[in-house]
Amino acid sequence: MFRDEHNTSPVAQAHTHALGTHILLELDHCPQALLLEKEQLESALVESATQAGAHVVKSVFHQFSPHGLSGVVVIAESHITVHTWPEHSYAAIDIFTCGEPDIAQRIQDEIGRRFAPATCSAKTIMRGPSNH
Amino acid sequence: MFRDEHNTSPVAQAHTHALGTHILLELDHCPQALLLEKEQLESALVESATQAGAHVVKSVFHQFSPHGLSGVVVIAESHITVHTWPEHSYAAIDIFTCGEPDIAQRIQDEIGRRFAPATCSAKTIMRGPSNH
Repeated sequence: MFRDEHNTSPVAQAHTHALGTHILLELDHCPQALLLEKEQLESALVESATQAGAHVVKSVFHQFSPHGLSGVVVIAESHITVHTWPEHSYAAIDIFTCGEPDIAQRIQDEIGRRFAPATCSAKTIMRGPSNH
Repeated sequence: MFRDEHNTSPVAQAHTHALGTHILLELDHCPQALLLEKEQLESALVESATQAGAHVVKSVFHQFSPHGLSGVVVIAESHITVHTWPEHSYAAIDIFTCGEPDIAQRIQDEIGRRFAPATCSAKTIMRGPSNH
């Protein structure tokens, strides 16, 4: 479902101490209910985190007027963020994890199942101190 | 202070509808107080947002054991996140904004003033529906 586009830029390669895995998702043509309804969006992301084995610390979601949602799920492994643009049927989701490397991928898979976007891209960036 | 490394990969260039500006910061050799003390870190990021003209909706910060902090400042313009690794004197900060394009840069400038990292890199990625 996701087209993986791992970052291979000189910037990413310069990181000798990768501490975090950061996946940037662009989800196009998502179900409108997930882009418009705060409770549905929050449930989808909290469930994605827990089903993937992450540990939810807190979630904060905010409804904008006239529409559009922002949300953060703080997890013990780092965070998931989302911003929706219902008028573009689009959501930007970030998954940032530290520790066990597979967990970011598992969260991505769970999100893919719940959002089922028509098209999307996934970009992975390893985060850590720069190689100076 | 920041070395800007704007993303010029084909992935970023394929976005014809940029809706959000996302700056990824890797801050090396930050002051330990900002990496270890939750209240100081939260104040630094909330003040960076407000001084830059952003509108803070809520902030959530979490202290890990034995050390390390995660935090999110939800702003009307989107979000700021931070994760610290005091043992590496390192912090990963993300600034995600929509609307007025200059605000992400102003937040970055405010963070740079407060964290004064010895070295860091900044990478800008435009977020939006993929060009399918």
